[in-house]
Amino acid sequence: MSQDVIVALANLAANRESALTRLFELLRIPSISTDPASFAECERAAAWCAGDLSSMGYAASVRKTAGRPMVVGTRRTKQANRPHVLFYGHYDVQPVDPLALWTSPPFEPRLADDKANGQIIVARGASDDKGQLMTFLEACRAWIAATGDLPVSVTVLLEGEEESGSPSLESFLKANAKELTHDLALVCDTGQWDRTTPAITTMLRGNAFSEITIKGPSRDLHSGIYGGAALNPIRALAHVLAGLHDSKGRVQIPGFYDDVMQLPSAQREQWEALGFDAPKFLGDVGLTEGAGEAGRSVLEMLWARPTAEVNGIWGGYQGPGSKTVIPSEAAAKLTFRLVANQDPDKIIKGFEAFVTSRLLPDAKATFKGGRGSPATKFDTGSKPFVATAKALQDEWGKSAAMIGCGGSIPIVGHFKSMLGMDSLLIGFALEDDRIHSPNEKYNLSSFEGGARSWVRILGALAG
Amino acid sequence: MSQDVIVALANLAANRESALTRLFELLRIPSISTDPASFAECERAAAWCAGDLSSMGYAASVRKTAGRPMVVGTRRTKQANRPHVLFYGHYDVQPVDPLALWTSPPFEPRLADDKANGQIIVARGASDDKGQLMTFLEACRAWIAATGDLPVSVTVLLEGEEESGSPSLESFLKANAKELTHDLALVCDTGQWDRTTPAITTMLRGNAFSEITIKGPSRDLHSGIYGGAALNPIRALAHVLAGLHDSKGRVQIPGFYDDVMQLPSAQREQWEALGFDAPKFLGDVGLTEGAGEAGRSVLEMLWARPTAEVNGIWGGYQGPGSKTVIPSEAAAKLTFRLVANQDPDKIIKGFEAFVTSRLLPDAKATFKGGRGSPATKFDTGSKPFVATAKALQDEWGKSAAMIGCGGSIPIVGHFKSMLGMDSLLIGFALEDDRIHSPNEKYNLSSFEGGARSWVRILGALAG
Repeated sequence: MSQDVIVALANLAANRESALTRLFELLRIPSISTDPASFAECERAAAWCAGDLSSMGYAASVRKTAGRPMVVGTRRTKQANRPHVLFYGHYDVQPVDPLALWTSPPFEPRLADDKANGQIIVARGASDDKGQLMTFLEACRAWIAATGDLPVSVTVLLEGEEESGSPSLESFLKANAKELTHDLALVCDTGQWDRTTPAITTMLRGNAFSEITIKGPSRDLHSGIYGGAALNPIRALAHVLAGLHDSKGRVQIPGFYDDVMQLPSAQREQWEALGFDAPKFLGDVGLTEGAGEAGRSVLEMLWARPTAEVNGIWGGYQGPGSKTVIPSEAAAKLTFRLVANQDPDKIIKGFEAFVTSRLLPDAKATFKGGRGSPATKFDTGSKPFVATAKALQDEWGKSAAMIGCGGSIPIVGHFKSMLGMDSLLIGFALEDDRIHSPNEKYNLSSFEGGARSWVRILGALAG
Repeated sequence: MSQDVIVALANLAANRESALTRLFELLRIPSISTDPASFAECERAAAWCAGDLSSMGYAASVRKTAGRPMVVGTRRTKQANRPHVLFYGHYDVQPVDPLALWTSPPFEPRLADDKANGQIIVARGASDDKGQLMTFLEACRAWIAATGDLPVSVTVLLEGEEESGSPSLESFLKANAKELTHDLALVCDTGQWDRTTPAITTMLRGNAFSEITIKGPSRDLHSGIYGGAALNPIRALAHVLAGLHDSKGRVQIPGFYDDVMQLPSAQREQWEALGFDAPKFLGDVGLTEGAGEAGRSVLEMLWARPTAEVNGIWGGYQGPGSKTVIPSEAAAKLTFRLVANQDPDKIIKGFEAFVTSRLLPDAKATFKGGRGSPATKFDTGSKPFVATAKALQDEWGKSAAMIGCGGSIPIVGHFKSMLGMDSLLIGFALEDDRIHSPNEKYNLSSFEGGARSWVRILGALAG
């Protein structure tokens, strides 16, 4: 470990209390981005963040958008030939409803003792994402205070609309591409594997969307007069959808798995060693077994295998009692979760061909949608990845788990597709942080261990 | 042909104009039973009918119900050992919307020349059911005027809520069972086969209803976090519903066809001879082939075969765009059209067992509904049936078509189940009468041929 990292960690340790004071200041600002009554508070939070960056010598400012503002700040290292990273976090928070379930006011942060977690910070945003973004800012502050410099150049981008769908993000990235495009993005909005095991998210599934409408008769029919002779489009739709999976849970769209990257056996072994409690994961939502492909583990189903999922279905009469109608049409919305190296367009085309091939006589299908984004797979052999993993191992005393994520994280796709930039997803949240729920918390050990981790990672990325 | 029938027919012929005048009087009363603004008109129509019956020597009166009134009148024959029949019709009519599509005011009846049909009576209710019920009343009037007597005892029951779901009918039948229960019911609310071919409806399908809900996870799930591992109840529902029919359109519920009466070959041959235009019937609603059991004719599918039909389906997200949800449940409403001798309870039980046997792991099914009524099959060998068929043949010069009806006619079921009485369904409406639509019409030949038919039928039923 370099001497610089040692002194930065020491500085961090010496300033534990003031770091918590700063976080509490930010947590006191109710920056709920979905609530028009809180828009002024979002401006306050942005100003607070820009001010904090400026106090560390960042060239930082609040940037207007059509919605809540962005904060951008850059501080270049004095060292030559060092990488330039872009750090991403968000200062906005979720609404607090139902307020009655909070045991203390959501914007009055407090430390509490928790049996399982030790000391915890309780407040809306403590974990998602104010606590997390401050781990990075505290690490920068410690480096600068201890060494007078950052080991790498850093641009910080803090968004204020992450909890409301990021409506201004893409146009902002586009308009400021030059300022924001650097060697690597660091995204701090994910979690650890567990309290003692750090994690790097290395796989994000992509997705594709399709809405299918199946038409039968030209108008709704009376099932007494026509029933038995007229095609029922609900029957035709069920016939299509029931054929999407075979009895072993395998998706039956021709070519669906053609491009799927097989999970490297090392990765599978590492996941098996994580001790994931699949029965509990499923049992918490009333289920007992993985519904995916037979012979695959639940983690593999979630992280490394593609899906075909019906998100909604409708047709005919849905009111009380019965109505003897044969509807003219029936419809369904589907999403496909994709893994590397599946192509969303190819999947949608394959789905449409599959539907067409299974249409009952007189059934006609039309399609909407088709939006999609490919899965993201990170190069775990790259130099910054290896350095980061080593830094996390140094801090936590055990290897970082290389985990997958079943959902997509749009910012990562945007950085890749719009700025051509890879991301490293490192965060310190825990499953029991109650993000988006009452009594959100962040372990003090997450906050302090997170900041220490970033001190080490910044040092490691320097080369 | 007995002398009495001859003189009754002659009387009818001599009074053609006054019969039309009476029908027009009734048609001028806008007795729309679904429209509160027309409730007083329904009272007027009921009073008009009771008055007309009284004028023929019926002991007739308007009877209060919780809704629109009934009209009941009885006139006994002076002859001994003659049957007593109950005649059923309804004096209420459908609403007239869209009014702008009528070429003349709906309650200003007029005669018009029609290329295909000759002279037609145009008005709301001309066919359904004022014109039809008046065919019977004119036949009675002619018998009484010509012979001083009716050949059989007759009780007339005229309902005023047929077009609004008959909410008062069952309680009225129950409260007046003794007065209304006789040897046979004559129901005049159906049609001929075509302009020149009379028909008796001899088969009515029954029905049974079930609503199924399939539950998967205990709450809605995010398809990124859970997709691939969590059971999707829409998939489970589609799996159940897609299995309801095999590739030849045969319902797969075990035992579904066990009790089904096979169509007698004579009946099949008669139907084949009817010259039903199946391509046109289907083509009118945008379809090209019968969706029922392979190898059966469309008429057989409609009249003589049972069905399993999904009338409605829903689950998950139905709004605009996409939502990556795995819903907690999905549901569907089904009706089964039944033929003789299927038992609705047995069918529902079979369906529930079928669903349960096809549930994917972790799917749970609950059921609602189960209401049902069996199919009605008429004994075409009974004495009144044979006599009626002969009377129709005498009038129209060709055999009456013994037709089926894919829907159920609730009054027939009520007469059977509540009063233990068989019905004969004879009517003179035609497919192009535009009932329930603008410019409803009744052919003058239907009105006059209908009255002549009833004159003959009343004579034939006498013995």
